[in-house]
Amino acid sequence: MHFLDVDDLRIKDLLNIIDRAFYFKKNRKRHEKFLKDMSFGIIFEKPSTRTRISFDLAIHESGGHPIILNKNEIHLGKKESIKDTAKVLSRYLDGIIARVYSHRDLEELAKYSDVPVINALSDLSHPCQILADLMTIKEFKKSFKVKIAYLGDGNNVCNSLILGCAMVGADLYVATPKGYEPNASSILKAKQILEESSGTLVLTNNPLEAAEDADVIYTDVWMSMGDNKDKEEILKIFPPYQVNSKLLEKAKDDVMVMHCLPANRGMEITDDVMDGKNSVIYDQAENRLHAQKALLYHIYKKVKSE
Amino acid sequence: MHFLDVDDLRIKDLLNIIDRAFYFKKNRKRHEKFLKDMSFGIIFEKPSTRTRISFDLAIHESGGHPIILNKNEIHLGKKESIKDTAKVLSRYLDGIIARVYSHRDLEELAKYSDVPVINALSDLSHPCQILADLMTIKEFKKSFKVKIAYLGDGNNVCNSLILGCAMVGADLYVATPKGYEPNASSILKAKQILEESSGTLVLTNNPLEAAEDADVIYTDVWMSMGDNKDKEEILKIFPPYQVNSKLLEKAKDDVMVMHCLPANRGMEITDDVMDGKNSVIYDQAENRLHAQKALLYHIYKKVKSE
Amino acid sequence: MHFLDVDDLRIKDLLNIIDRAFYFKKNRKRHEKFLKDMSFGIIFEKPSTRTRISFDLAIHESGGHPIILNKNEIHLGKKESIKDTAKVLSRYLDGIIARVYSHRDLEELAKYSDVPVINALSDLSHPCQILADLMTIKEFKKSFKVKIAYLGDGNNVCNSLILGCAMVGADLYVATPKGYEPNASSILKAKQILEESSGTLVLTNNPLEAAEDADVIYTDVWMSMGDNKDKEEILKIFPPYQVNSKLLEKAKDDVMVMHCLPANRGMEITDDVMDGKNSVIYDQAENRLHAQKALLYHIYKKVKSE
Repeated sequence: MHFLDVDDLRIKDLLNIIDRAFYFKKNRKRHEKFLKDMSFGIIFEKPSTRTRISFDLAIHESGGHPIILNKNEIHLGKKESIKDTAKVLSRYLDGIIARVYSHRDLEELAKYSDVPVINALSDLSHPCQILADLMTIKEFKKSFKVKIAYLGDGNNVCNSLILGCAMVGADLYVATPKGYEPNASSILKAKQILEESSGTLVLTNNPLEAAEDADVIYTDVWMSMGDNKDKEEILKIFPPYQVNSKLLEKAKDDVMVMHCLPANRGMEITDDVMDGKNSVIYDQAENRLHAQKALLYHIYKKVKSE
Repeated sequence: MHFLDVDDLRIKDLLNIIDRAFYFKKNRKRHEKFLKDMSFGIIFEKPSTRTRISFDLAIHESGGHPIILNKNEIHLGKKESIKDTAKVLSRYLDGIIARVYSHRDLEELAKYSDVPVINALSDLSHPCQILADLMTIKEFKKSFKVKIAYLGDGNNVCNSLILGCAMVGADLYVATPKGYEPNASSILKAKQILEESSGTLVLTNNPLEAAEDADVIYTDVWMSMGDNKDKEEILKIFPPYQVNSKLLEKAKDDVMVMHCLPANRGMEITDDVMDGKNSVIYDQAENRLHAQKALLYHIYKKVKSE
Repeated sequence: MHFLDVDDLRIKDLLNIIDRAFYFKKNRKRHEKFLKDMSFGIIFEKPSTRTRISFDLAIHESGGHPIILNKNEIHLGKKESIKDTAKVLSRYLDGIIARVYSHRDLEELAKYSDVPVINALSDLSHPCQILADLMTIKEFKKSFKVKIAYLGDGNNVCNSLILGCAMVGADLYVATPKGYEPNASSILKAKQILEESSGTLVLTNNPLEAAEDADVIYTDVWMSMGDNKDKEEILKIFPPYQVNSKLLEKAKDDVMVMHCLPANRGMEITDDVMDGKNSVIYDQAENRLHAQKALLYHIYKKVKSE
């Protein structure tokens, strides 16, 4: 199977993966080496700290061999057709993990690959992040039946969060400026999932509506690498969506603050909130490791979930 | 021993290496860890997908530790004399694998290194590719007594192919445009080898003569990274050497089509041929791994070949 | 503990580390895997050959897992605050080894890191180099009670050498051009150490005074990467500090010549001296590996030194 977005998983599998992630967290380096004798390519068209280290470790600590392929070492669709790259990598490796600019390139890679392809961030989605996020919410709130407010840019993280929250039945409020809403197809897919789930999805341009009585407040950078947004416009229209102490007053006292990092401190989130008692951002970052191990376990142990 | 070109091997050793490569192919991850406790530097002045992954895996799967040194991490002869680099690497590592622009730099590295130096591509030669190529020919044709047509640029791959084919006694036709013939010294060395071998070497500018009744048709990109060829000229004079379905009609029905990749689809080879039933290009790519393991086994087990 | 400069160690610990380094040299790949199940980030803001390979091997050969993070993969204090990077890395890794431009960044990293931070070169200091240097002096001179002459630029290596020599009680003469003296705070710290040590520290602008009867002559490049020195000025005022055969005549017959490499042959040191019988530069480079293993052992085995 490939893992290009959260809804490539069945709901049962998603919940199993999150449960298993807690097992891996408790048994960090002492768990079964279920990737023994396997090797994985980790492709980075964009550099990354968390994804780089968390996948390297998830593989290494599970007995596998990670091979990092940076953008100068592999040029998807430039020096070589994606088909040829996919076919060749499939001969050498047991899996391909790729952080790419274009989701279309990832789909092309998956189309021709004979081994699983895992999305480690594309312009459309960031499903591995959302596995860690859901794990973190469960860790601190013990339940997915919570109100989650996502504030800021309707980006790849937001697109995948919409799917993940719908699948686990959470109540998600997404507050973005006009014109920065999440991807229409992700919204559509989430709404289809929500028809059979107990969650809700509210899209708004009002950050206070989202933050009100929220159990979780989540934000991300307003502009990320490779974005060709108009910086002046961003600075004009995004400030009301900043996660600061005033906004936190609207939320529940024990609201947990999340950010997938890297953060642009002082922009989408203030220092006092990042460093404050409600922040779980470093736990959230750590959980990337455990959640990705659980994903790999799901894929490579071909666990049957009933 | 160093391995800078195919003829650094005795013919017996070359044949042994190819035989052993089949053993490694059959026992991909379950063979003896003959590189246990050894570490290897893999230097890339030019980036690479296949060489990068196949050497990393060849070493890792044999129990050794590969250390990738990219062009920003090591500057052969720039920040430091090649002598100093060679001497220092020899203190740390059990072997050096290097992909370089200048074959002279490689010779300098080998001159001062106290550990084996393996050529992973230079402007003159690409012997590791040819080990995989000969393995692939044997895999599909069961014999080296076949007609092989190489079409296109008389480049490093071609130079080493000439030596390899001479050593195994194949009949090699090299068809290049005028002015793009293979290296004179490689030709000379091949002719010397052919005095005691049953093979033949024909150099021609006529692609049809080469392709006629061929068992194997092999091509490579017309321009590669770092080449300072005149692109306009290339596009004017190389098209008759394109490997396409019309050219294939000249060859035997079961002709096998080879390309060392990456391919510039639509230039030196057409999509229908790359993706057609005669193409063995992905097998050829995979065989890099097995052939390089066999080379490392030869060097590090100091196998006596009788 | 962090290791940002030599004097982060107690004198007893420094001596123990050097002794243990000899044990690791004798038992290169057969020693206890004391870093089993541990992973380390090795951050390079500046590329490096020796530091890259010696730390990779020190960790790998001791059972740990090294993760190389090059300057495009991690941007200390640029894409992300150093605090966030430190906090996140602490969740994933057992230690951070960093080669940085600014020592202040390293101190910031250490301040927020929950795991040990090791300085692998900053603009202020290079303590890992000095561990290897002291080991090399002991290896060839059997004692630290020797006259050591450092000639050239009062740079990071020189700053740390001053501390290390003071701690082991050596007699160090530092000869630099006016205006290129070592760092004032390193000198101050060395003088404090020397109050209770049997060594001496002499700062001079006279290379011959330093070289006279020296047991050890040590030099380094006059300009290194990232330096924004005036090259013309360097070429005008540094030549009297060149380590050449004429200068060696001033020293003891069995003077050992050291250079931490890479060398700019013909500038700060001549070919005949680099390649001559007094040179121990390749041994010195090799000892980086053993000394760093001993440092890691000290930190991670929490060895009590009495």
